Amino acid sequence: MMTFTAQDVVYMQMALELAEKGQFTTTPNPSVGCVLVKDGIIVGRGFHVKAGEAHAEVMALREAGENARGATAYVTLEPCSHFGRTPPCAQGLIDAGVVKVVSAMCDPNPQVAGRGLSMLSDAGIESAVGLLAEKAEWLNRGFLKRMRTGRPYVQLKMAMSLDGRTAMANGESKWITGELARADVQAERAKASAILSTSATVLADDPLLNVRWQQLPDKVKADYTQAQLRQPVRVILDSQHRVQPSHRLFSLSSPVWLVSQTARSLLEFPAHCEQIQLSASTNALADLMAELGQRQINTLWIEAGATLAGALIEAKLVDELIIYIAPKLLGDAARGLCKLPHLSTLAEASLWQLHSIEKLGDDLKTIYHPRITEPT
Amino acid sequence: MMTFTAQDVVYMQMALELAEKGQFTTTPNPSVGCVLVKDGIIVGRGFHVKAGEAHAEVMALREAGENARGATAYVTLEPCSHFGRTPPCAQGLIDAGVVKVVSAMCDPNPQVAGRGLSMLSDAGIESAVGLLAEKAEWLNRGFLKRMRTGRPYVQLKMAMSLDGRTAMANGESKWITGELARADVQAERAKASAILSTSATVLADDPLLNVRWQQLPDKVKADYTQAQLRQPVRVILDSQHRVQPSHRLFSLSSPVWLVSQTARSLLEFPAHCEQIQLSASTNALADLMAELGQRQINTLWIEAGATLAGALIEAKLVDELIIYIAPKLLGDAARGLCKLPHLSTLAEASLWQLHSIEKLGDDLKTIYHPRITEPT
Repeated sequence: MMTFTAQDVVYMQMALELAEKGQFTTTPNPSVGCVLVKDGIIVGRGFHVKAGEAHAEVMALREAGENARGATAYVTLEPCSHFGRTPPCAQGLIDAGVVKVVSAMCDPNPQVAGRGLSMLSDAGIESAVGLLAEKAEWLNRGFLKRMRTGRPYVQLKMAMSLDGRTAMANGESKWITGELARADVQAERAKASAILSTSATVLADDPLLNVRWQQLPDKVKADYTQAQLRQPVRVILDSQHRVQPSHRLFSLSSPVWLVSQTARSLLEFPAHCEQIQLSASTNALADLMAELGQRQINTLWIEAGATLAGALIEAKLVDELIIYIAPKLLGDAARGLCKLPHLSTLAEASLWQLHSIEKLGDDLKTIYHPRITEPT
Repeated sequence: MMTFTAQDVVYMQMALELAEKGQFTTTPNPSVGCVLVKDGIIVGRGFHVKAGEAHAEVMALREAGENARGATAYVTLEPCSHFGRTPPCAQGLIDAGVVKVVSAMCDPNPQVAGRGLSMLSDAGIESAVGLLAEKAEWLNRGFLKRMRTGRPYVQLKMAMSLDGRTAMANGESKWITGELARADVQAERAKASAILSTSATVLADDPLLNVRWQQLPDKVKADYTQAQLRQPVRVILDSQHRVQPSHRLFSLSSPVWLVSQTARSLLEFPAHCEQIQLSASTNALADLMAELGQRQINTLWIEAGATLAGALIEAKLVDELIIYIAPKLLGDAARGLCKLPHLSTLAEASLWQLHSIEKLGDDLKTIYHPRITEPT
C-alpha cells in the first residue's frame, strides 16, 4: 500500500486539470497532464495536446529546464516506454534528472503496461502509482477501454421527456431539451472520437452530425479556439445503401464511414467517405465495435432512434447511457426511448446504475453504467 | 422589511423540527411547532399532535410554566385567534406574559388570517412574521392549499423505469422500484389525509391502500409508534359501481369513500364505507377536489394508472408530481406513464419544474411542480 501526502494530492489534481485541457484534441492518444515540483515549487507543467505533438512530460520538462534536476514528476498516466511518434517519456524524465515519479495509474497500452515504471526503477528513480486513479481512469475511459478490449467506449445519448418520450407521434422532436442541454451534447460530441448514427436518421433529418463551435458551452469556448476544433468521424449504419452523396454529411470534410455487410461502389462519393464492410454475421454491432477499435476510435458517441438504441442495449454494448431529461410530459402516444423486443418479464429488465446527475438549465443530465453488482 | 438575527433562525428551525413531528397525525389541522426562549434559554417546547388536542403554543406554555413571563415565542404558524376545539392560542400567549412572538408565516385560515397577530399587538406584544416562511409553507402545503382554495393539495405518485414505464405489457409491476423507495411511499401515504385510486386498480390488484407500519422507513418508526398510526381515508373512483363489499379495502376500518355520479345503495357495505355522489358534470375531477376540500382533506395522495394520471394532468389538478425512477429499461412495449390524448405537438407539452431529487437506494425520487414561469 503506497501512501501519499495531502501535497501529493494537490499536485496530482493539478496534473489532472492540465490533462483535461487535452480531452477535445488528443484522440486516439490519451489525455495526460504533468506537473514537476522541486523544493515545494512548481517548476514545470504540461499536457498533451494532439497525437504527433509533444507528450505532457516533455512539455513540463521544457518549462522546467535545469530545474527538473531533483524534481518530482506528477503524471496522470504511467510515462511511456516506447518510441512512437515521439521518444519515450520515461527516458526523458531520467535524462532530465527527475528523482521521483508519481503516476495516477498504469498505462494498459500493451506497448507500455508497466515498462515505463520499470525503466524508471532501473534508473534508480523512486516511483509510486495509484494517486487519484479513479479520476484518471474516468478522464481516459475511452482510450483505456480500447487498450484493454480493442473496442471503443460506447456512449449512448438520449434526450427524453419526463415520461421517457423522445419525439411526438409524428416525429416532432425539436426541441425536447433546452439550450444548455443541447450545448452539453455539442461538448460531448467534441470529446468523442466518432459519432454513430443510422441511415434512417440521415434520410429523416439530413443532419451534419458535427460539432458546432458556436453552440459549445462558454466554458469550452474559453479554452478552445474554433481553429483547434477537431471533428469526430461520422459512422453511419447503412445496410441498404440508402445514404447518397447529396446528403449534407458530405458537405463537411471530416470522414464519413458507411457501414454495411454488402459491398458498395463509392465512386460518386467524395474522398472523405469510406466503406466499412462487415462480414455477414448475426453480431454485426459487436463486429463493428471491434472494427472501430482497430481504427483507433476511443469513444463512440451514439445518437440513435429507439431501434438501434434497443439493439445496442440488448447486445450489452453500451458502456454509458447519457439521458437528458426535460421537465415535460408528452403522453403515451409519443415515441419511446428504446425497443427491447426480447424482454417480456420484469426479471429480464435491463439493469443500470446511476453514475451522476447534473442540472442543466431546466433539464437533468443523468449518466448510468451497466449494473455489475446485485441490486440492493 | 423585518430583520431577524442568526439566533432567531436557530430557534425557528427548532420550532419547525418540532412541527414536523406532527405531520403524520395532525390532519385536518396544520402541523405547528413552538419554542419559548427567555434570556437565551429555551424554557418551553411544544408541537401539535392531533386535532382536538392541545396546540403547539399550549404545550410549550405548559412546559415553561412561570418562565413564560418575559419570554419570546417562536411559532411556525400565526397563533390562532378563534375558539375551535381549543381556546385561542394568541390569548394564551398574552395571558402567560410572553413579550414577543415570531411567526414563520400568517395563517390563511379565514378564521385567523392576521387576527392572531392583531390580538397580540392590541395587547402590546411585539410580533414579527416571515422567518423561514418557505419551510413553514412546505411543511403545511396541504392545509394551506385547502385554506386558500378550498381544495386539497394533490400529489400524483408514479413509479417508473428509466424509460418511463410503469409495468410490463402484461401488467407485471411488482416491483419496479426497490425497498427504500417503497418505504418512502409508505411514509408519504402516512402523511396524506387521503389516498385516491380507481375501481380499475381495486379490481386488478385488490389492494388495501393503507399504511403498513412495518414497511415505514426506520426514521419514521423511531418517532412514531404503531398505535399512533393514522390511516388515510381511501377514496375510490367507481363510476360504474364495480367495487364490492368483498374487496379487501373493507377489511380495514379506516373510511372508504366511493365516488360516482350516480346513486348507489350501500346497504351491503360496512359502516365505514360512504358514497360521494358528484353532480353530472364534465369536470368531475375538479368537482371531486372541491368536495374533498369540504371534507377537510388537506393532502390527497394519488396512485393511479396512465388514464387517471393523464386526466388529472390535463385538468391541471396536480400540485406535485412525485416520480420514483428505477435504473432499469423495460422497452417500448411496456406500459407508459400517462395518457395525454389531447396533446399532439411539442408546443402543447405539459410543462413542469424540478423541485428536488433524492437518491433512495438504487432509485431516484424526483418531485416536480407545475411550471409557472417561462422555460429558460
